[in-house]
Amino acid sequence: MKLATIRTADGATRAVRVEDDHLVDLGAADVGEYLANPGGAVTGERTYPLDGARYAPVVPRPGKIICVGLNYRNHILEMGRDLPAYPTLFSKYAETLVGAEDDIVLPPETEAFDWECELAVIVGAPVRRARGAEAENAIAGFAVLNDVTCRDWQFRTKEWLQGKNWEATTPLGPYLVTPDELPGGVRPKVDISTEIDGETVQRDNTGDLLFDPVDLVEYVSTMVTLKPGDVIATGTPGGVGHARKPPRYLRAGQRLVTTVDGLGHCANRIVAG
Amino acid sequence: MKLATIRTADGATRAVRVEDDHLVDLGAADVGEYLANPGGAVTGERTYPLDGARYAPVVPRPGKIICVGLNYRNHILEMGRDLPAYPTLFSKYAETLVGAEDDIVLPPETEAFDWECELAVIVGAPVRRARGAEAENAIAGFAVLNDVTCRDWQFRTKEWLQGKNWEATTPLGPYLVTPDELPGGVRPKVDISTEIDGETVQRDNTGDLLFDPVDLVEYVSTMVTLKPGDVIATGTPGGVGHARKPPRYLRAGQRLVTTVDGLGHCANRIVAG
Repeated sequence: MKLATIRTADGATRAVRVEDDHLVDLGAADVGEYLANPGGAVTGERTYPLDGARYAPVVPRPGKIICVGLNYRNHILEMGRDLPAYPTLFSKYAETLVGAEDDIVLPPETEAFDWECELAVIVGAPVRRARGAEAENAIAGFAVLNDVTCRDWQFRTKEWLQGKNWEATTPLGPYLVTPDELPGGVRPKVDISTEIDGETVQRDNTGDLLFDPVDLVEYVSTMVTLKPGDVIATGTPGGVGHARKPPRYLRAGQRLVTTVDGLGHCANRIVAG
Repeated sequence: MKLATIRTADGATRAVRVEDDHLVDLGAADVGEYLANPGGAVTGERTYPLDGARYAPVVPRPGKIICVGLNYRNHILEMGRDLPAYPTLFSKYAETLVGAEDDIVLPPETEAFDWECELAVIVGAPVRRARGAEAENAIAGFAVLNDVTCRDWQFRTKEWLQGKNWEATTPLGPYLVTPDELPGGVRPKVDISTEIDGETVQRDNTGDLLFDPVDLVEYVSTMVTLKPGDVIATGTPGGVGHARKPPRYLRAGQRLVTTVDGLGHCANRIVAG
């Protein structure tokens, strides 16, 4: 099953289920609200055409966005580092999010705007200190995310927050896809990639994640209750622009396409802010 | 003026203005909602007794809680460090918050539960790239906060998030106090302290902040829109338990009192989680 949050003509949003050629209204303003109250009043026969649908971030206002640092095994080892015992976690605010086809805003304050394709986990049930099956069952599904980063700001201090929290920089969408549709289920084994103007700059497989989605639900929920609509961004593989020699960054006018097999893709134009 | 969010008998909350001996209902469920819509319908004569009021976190669900690392000049210099060019920023989730008299939950997973008294800035207007007077005017007021931290988890990785985001660990309250009531106004110069069972363990003055509240509104709003109800925790002075020789940490049964002159205090019991 695929769920999405679409923008409507009146400037609002609706949560929908994606069918072959149409969208079915789920009786909620967005997928976050739907996940929090899945038994809510469904409007029944209200549908929209799939063609021309305008996607908001699949969860427009997550209560929490938890992000993971270096988490692809091959990439950690190729950098000559030891595999870490614990995931490195940082945070994003909801204002960073844009929809799957929205513009990404390149701020005038950065000269190092970089890409990071990621598999995003979307939480579907409130859990604290979840283990095993409880953690698995708390995963509503997955979506595509690109943790576009201002590297110069990221490394101003030891804490990464300020490189990761620029308004309208982080596509999340187009859909939430439930685990049953993916090879590997709640531990998906699917290709993930970034393209810039048609050139592939990152490619890996989510089966290479050191801390997989279930591990991360277990770990984060040890600290704090995960709630429906919360997002965990699982980290990016090798191939980011900052690690290249010479470094390479995003420029206004480029088209950034982030793909996770089975989850669709985000295709965003970079525009000067 | 002092504003608070109080718990009502039906399990809900209300935003109130604090008068000498009573509380006046502001027509909103909490101070965050009131700040977002200060011209909302006021219920007029509805009041509550001041005596016995039960305080929720003054903003129970901030959209953003932005925290600042080392920010007291004396403490940075006494540690032999250079004054940093940029504030170190990290984030807390709303689930960490408790009210001014609530219990603080000591998780069984930590052996290093530490105190950090802080001045919290509460945002009152949406601003992006605010400078000068616009940044000053975006400050609705101030409150007391204690950024209680699991040091062992904080230093598991380079990023501090996982030491700072345990459920029900961070008192915020009891009031929002508007800048006109404080010496220094939007750059308050007031004493701040932590006591444990009556023993003072931290004491400094907020006039010693390297990045003051206006600087921080300017800096953070460069990245992202600050919105009504957002909280900026401005950092803690010297005297934390982790820096002592030997280190000293909070234990269940202790009473933690965090005071900022003019803002009242939070008095929280530490309970085993």
